[in-house]
Amino acid sequence: MSDEIPIYAELLAAAGRLSGVARITPLLESADLNRHVGGRVLVKAETLQFAGSFKFRGAYNRLSQLDHAQKRRGVVAYSSGNHALAVATAAATLGTSALLVMPRDAPELKVARVRALGGSICFYERERGDREAIAERLAHEHGRILVPPSDDRDVIAGQATVAMEIFEQARDRGLEIDVMLACCSGGGLVAGCALAMAERKPDCQVYAVESAEVDRMRRSLAYGAPVRLKDSGKSLCDALTAAAPGRLPWAICRHRLAGVLAVNDIEVCKGMAAAFRDLKLVVEPSGAAALGAALARQLDLRGKTIAVICSGANVDHSTYLAGLVQGSRVYPDANAMPQV
Amino acid sequence: MSDEIPIYAELLAAAGRLSGVARITPLLESADLNRHVGGRVLVKAETLQFAGSFKFRGAYNRLSQLDHAQKRRGVVAYSSGNHALAVATAAATLGTSALLVMPRDAPELKVARVRALGGSICFYERERGDREAIAERLAHEHGRILVPPSDDRDVIAGQATVAMEIFEQARDRGLEIDVMLACCSGGGLVAGCALAMAERKPDCQVYAVESAEVDRMRRSLAYGAPVRLKDSGKSLCDALTAAAPGRLPWAICRHRLAGVLAVNDIEVCKGMAAAFRDLKLVVEPSGAAALGAALARQLDLRGKTIAVICSGANVDHSTYLAGLVQGSRVYPDANAMPQV
Repeated sequence: MSDEIPIYAELLAAAGRLSGVARITPLLESADLNRHVGGRVLVKAETLQFAGSFKFRGAYNRLSQLDHAQKRRGVVAYSSGNHALAVATAAATLGTSALLVMPRDAPELKVARVRALGGSICFYERERGDREAIAERLAHEHGRILVPPSDDRDVIAGQATVAMEIFEQARDRGLEIDVMLACCSGGGLVAGCALAMAERKPDCQVYAVESAEVDRMRRSLAYGAPVRLKDSGKSLCDALTAAAPGRLPWAICRHRLAGVLAVNDIEVCKGMAAAFRDLKLVVEPSGAAALGAALARQLDLRGKTIAVICSGANVDHSTYLAGLVQGSRVYPDANAMPQV
Repeated sequence: MSDEIPIYAELLAAAGRLSGVARITPLLESADLNRHVGGRVLVKAETLQFAGSFKFRGAYNRLSQLDHAQKRRGVVAYSSGNHALAVATAAATLGTSALLVMPRDAPELKVARVRALGGSICFYERERGDREAIAERLAHEHGRILVPPSDDRDVIAGQATVAMEIFEQARDRGLEIDVMLACCSGGGLVAGCALAMAERKPDCQVYAVESAEVDRMRRSLAYGAPVRLKDSGKSLCDALTAAAPGRLPWAICRHRLAGVLAVNDIEVCKGMAAAFRDLKLVVEPSGAAALGAALARQLDLRGKTIAVICSGANVDHSTYLAGLVQGSRVYPDANAMPQV
């Protein structure tokens, strides 16, 4: 890790490391979804990635570069969800050990899965503990490498491979991406995608998608400097809760994003329902934010080719069902709609 | 179409026709699912195929061989669901017209979708009408080619490409398939898969999976001749309702199947819940029957490599939610289970 923005060669190197390891997830299209949006919507199903989200890419790219001594000591990461599962999976794949700093109220299923992958857990109290500080202390005490969820050049380079794959899969079909929508918490995914597209198709407009209740990137861009949210609202998007953009993602996003789209919970549920009905994909609320944004008509997408990243699917069935019921109410049959 | 069992060259020709047209659907694996079954479970996600099921393969393989005059007159097919959508999709792709014989109480969504694809519909009354006879009459009157859902050598050859893809995707990972599980209604899919595996890996055991309530293939094999069910029970599997095996599928299956597995509705729901939690796939009840069978411990699958076809995902959200709630109750967290 260093403090620099990754250069394009590092993105290519990440793609090389992930080749034959990460899944090449499908880029799906649906006539009904296209009709809803009025353009060609290409949905990248990172829900089918190992550990259930794009996070595996960054985690594996980082962990695969540990030297022998570092591997022996292992890594530490803080996360209540997808990043924890991804780091534990990458560690198990690479034969190193992972210590995860997780909130004491983390879902039992996720705790059990991390343990099944051989990961150790250090619990903290969500209200009082500062998970970053705890992870840093543990890294220092045990000589473990800290793997941040987004503020790391190798993590960002790994996430960038999502956009590189999209570019290639679209090109194979004779398509060029005009607009790309990626969800944003700390910003590692959208920053990586923006870097990749700047090289592959510089006029592609890359947008970050946030929950309107926790819109750290939108406010940061408006303010011109990273903003740390104090009083965030509640949102279904439990994986998009970073209070501030990561330092490196911010350094990238401030120059490279076309903008930020903020979606409310209903729009998120609409994305979940569209993924269910038109794509047959299980998508968690946070993972459906970008698709929700594509359907929310905040941008004029008519006639465009839009890449939408469905980023994760780690959701319990009751949360999923609630979202789907809600979303199905507001996602009409495309064939019953006036043509856009 | 002719009355003969397709030879291997026809399966290869079907694969050639479908290349670059049908989706190469992912072959997914999950550590949790493997732990449940005690072997390596490779799940073929035909839920992500065009029109939401494997049926597109057979329909396209048949329709792409129409000559100019036949294309001008179009095709006719009977189906309340996946085959209708597949034929309508293939017809739209190939620029011919499709007339679908559907029950008057077919789900509105499916009716709307068929129409959006440019398909015409001839409704019949489920209680009184004989859909096969209606379709044959329409074919005769309008000079349309009848495309049966399973009893057709080109349809079977098309469905066989599912198994051929599985074989190749497994081989690329250094794996050989010991057991293959495919759902069975008329039997086109499982017959095609059995033919493909007979050539590619003759010692692979191919099983048909049926609803225990509508077990036409199991009874036919036991009886030694095709049995037509009179008083079928009710089952969640609304796409596995053929009263008898198709003639050609029967001619293939009677010699080539390792056996039949019959699952009840709870086992089907368990398959849906497993697909949701461990694979992030939306699967309709019928489409989850094979996965349910893999989890039902009717066979000793320990230490084996098992290909399971998740065959379709055309389901409304309320049916899906009901199945998922039911299935989640009986699908325990793999990490909390004793090792098998």
